[in-house]
Order: sequence, then C-alpha cells, then structure tokens
Amino acid sequence: MLAPAPHGRTGGAEGIVARVMASQPLPIAVLVSGAGTNLQALIDTVHRREVEIVAVASSKDGVRALQRARASGIQTAVFSRSRYPDRVARDLALADWLEAAGARLIVLAGYMELLSEAFLNRFEGAVINVHPSLLPAFPGLHAVEQAIACGVKVFGVTIHFVDSGVDTGPIIAQSAIELEDARDPAEVLELLHPIEHRLLIDVVRRCAAGSVKIGAGGGDRVLRSG
Amino acid sequence: MLAPAPHGRTGGAEGIVARVMASQPLPIAVLVSGAGTNLQALIDTVHRREVEIVAVASSKDGVRALQRARASGIQTAVFSRSRYPDRVARDLALADWLEAAGARLIVLAGYMELLSEAFLNRFEGAVINVHPSLLPAFPGLHAVEQAIACGVKVFGVTIHFVDSGVDTGPIIAQSAIELEDARDPAEVLELLHPIEHRLLIDVVRRCAAGSVKIGAGGGDRVLRSG
Repeated sequence: MLAPAPHGRTGGAEGIVARVMASQPLPIAVLVSGAGTNLQALIDTVHRREVEIVAVASSKDGVRALQRARASGIQTAVFSRSRYPDRVARDLALADWLEAAGARLIVLAGYMELLSEAFLNRFEGAVINVHPSLLPAFPGLHAVEQAIACGVKVFGVTIHFVDSGVDTGPIIAQSAIELEDARDPAEVLELLHPIEHRLLIDVVRRCAAGSVKIGAGGGDRVLRSG
Repeated sequence: MLAPAPHGRTGGAEGIVARVMASQPLPIAVLVSGAGTNLQALIDTVHRREVEIVAVASSKDGVRALQRARASGIQTAVFSRSRYPDRVARDLALADWLEAAGARLIVLAGYMELLSEAFLNRFEGAVINVHPSLLPAFPGLHAVEQAIACGVKVFGVTIHFVDSGVDTGPIIAQSAIELEDARDPAEVLELLHPIEHRLLIDVVRRCAAGSVKIGAGGGDRVLRSG
C-alpha cells in the first residue's frame, strides 16, 4: 500500500526484509494547514525512530506547523491557493516536491484542502488522514459541530486512507469518547486531541512496520496483519 | 415528555411532585418481537421498583419474550401482521390496549415493526427505542452488518426517542465499544447486549425520575436535567 521504495523489496527472505525495515526508517511527509499539534506528536515520538519526516507541506503561509517543522530541521514548503490558483497544477507541484523528498507515506494532519485525483494516483494507497469524527458519521468540515448539533453522546476520531471522496476512504483506526452533554466544539476538540495523537502515532508505527494493508477480497475493509 | 398521568401533576409544589413520583412506579409497556433479553434486563432490575411493566406486546406469536413476561405475571398481547393486515388499524388497536393498561412510557426493545404516526401521536414523546449502532450511523435493519461492511472500529448502542423516521428521533443515550477487527455480526451483537441492557436500564430509571426531556430551544438535543 505504500509508494514504491527506491530499492525493490521483493525477492528477499522475510527475515531480511524485516531487518531492512528495522534499520531504515520509513520516509514520510506531513501535510498541514494550521497549528500542527499532530505533526508535533509525530516529531516527539516516531520521527528519527520508526519514520523519518522528510518533508512538511502547508496549504497556508505562516502557520505554527511550519515553525514546528523548521525547529526540528525538517524541510518545508507552502503550496497556497494564492500561489497556485489551479488546484491540479498545485497538487502536481506538491506531488513532485514530495516525491523528490522521497516520501513514501503522506499524512494529512489537519490539512484543509481536498487533494485531486491526479495527486492521489501518484501516491496510491499511501495517503492517510485524521478526521475528528467516527466516520462514516459527520464527514467534511466542522465534524464536531455537526455531531453536537445531532445530539450524539459518543464522539471520536478516525484515521483512514484518502480516496477521491470527502472522508470516504477505508478506515484504518478509530477511537471513541463518551460525552453525555457536549455543547462546546472547542472543548470537545481539546478532548479529542490526545486521542488523535495516540491513534495517529499508532497507525504511523504500523505503517512503518508494514502491518497496515487493505485486505485482499475484503473490499473496503482494512486488516491488521501484524 | 411522558404521556399524561391519569391524575394531573400540574399545580403541585415541586416537593410534592417528587414524593408522588418516588412512591408510585412509572407504568411502562415493552414492545418486543423476539428473545426479549432487554425486557428481561428491565424485569430483573427496575420492574416493581422505579417502574411497573404493565404490558408487553409482541409483533410475533410464540416468541421467548412473551414467556418471559408471563413468567413475571405481566399481561401480554400479540399484534401480528397476520391478525392485523392493516398497519394503521393494528397500531390503533395496540395503542388502545397500551392506554387501557395505563402505560405512560413505551419501550421498543427489539421491536421489529415501524410504528405509524397515528400511534406516535397517541404517545407523543413517550416512545423510546434501543438501536445497535451509534446513530446517526447505520439506521434501519442489520445495523451491525452495515457497520462491519463499512469497516468501522467502534461499535455501539443508541437509545432514542422514536419519531416517524427510521431511527431518526432525538438521541437520549449512547455507549461505544472499540473492536479493531470485527467480522462476525453475532459476536458483535453478543458484546453489545450487556451495553444495551445497562444503557436501557439507566434511561428507564431517568425517565421514571423525570430527568429525561427534550431540551427547550435545543431542537433535537436531549438534555439531562437531573
């Protein structure tokens, strides 16, 4: 499911593959648009261990996430609407930049733009997103506001593969929190943040270990092999 | 939100109302179609304490739920499709029977029929349902099968007020369970049953205590006053 490695992994005995993977962190990129708390969670835990964050791209200039990346010596770039009025052209420039950086897994961490199919085809099955609801409920923007308006008593977080729909790709991991009387979106988001971080770190670790894959024959089902 | 009491409760001082409620169990009816495990949970916990189950109606003849009711000395009746080919006529006969029994809260516990608006108008805001998903996700039949097919990692139970839609009424309570690799609907349902029982008992207790109401001005939101 990950983008092709620069050196093929086929043909080796299983033990050799495992050793190669253990000694070489998975090169990943993180796409951001704002504060970058999920990015920071990855920097603090798996960066330069199971994975190497080789690039951070933002859809907005001047955001805190870019500062966090630079503070950790990670190269950054901005692909804003003002610089790239054409979405497909922007996504292809972004894809070129990420490919040049060697990224094999793309993590959308609070990235507020929809990626075009042209981009997704370049990183097929290798783009994951963090969404603050228990999908398939409340896709799209303002998920927590939607959930509060609906009067739900259970909130949650989903990590899923990105496809061309809005938060419709195969689910990798979910976690829930019961809140009987939630009214304030900001409060709910604050409670969801540590859950997001924990879940994202876990999924990125599993990606690095090769234990996340879309199940053969299972359609949309995502299986954990490890 | 409950159906009117035979003797009006308006006009009394709040303390008197509370004493009346504490000394008189809330008369409830339970509608069933099958095994009746939720009915049994109510019989074993709140029946003849906070509530009195005054009637159990089934949409099917010969089901285990009817035996459970009779074993506890609760009057039963069957309102099957074969006896009542006309749905509205069936629902009105059912409503007459429940009203004669004095039921002021109607609990759908595995009841597999949709209730017509004519019925719901007779017990406005006093009909609650147990549904094996985290609504608004997976309404209707085969909720657990739907959830498994979607690949979710969090399952759950919802108790909600019944309106004329399919599992669309205001949510009263929800509880969740994280299952990373659920494949067998029967296994999931078995895990959900104790959650259903706990949640239903809690909601029925809150109804009996008058602490469940639809929030004024909150649209679909259900507030807990107690």
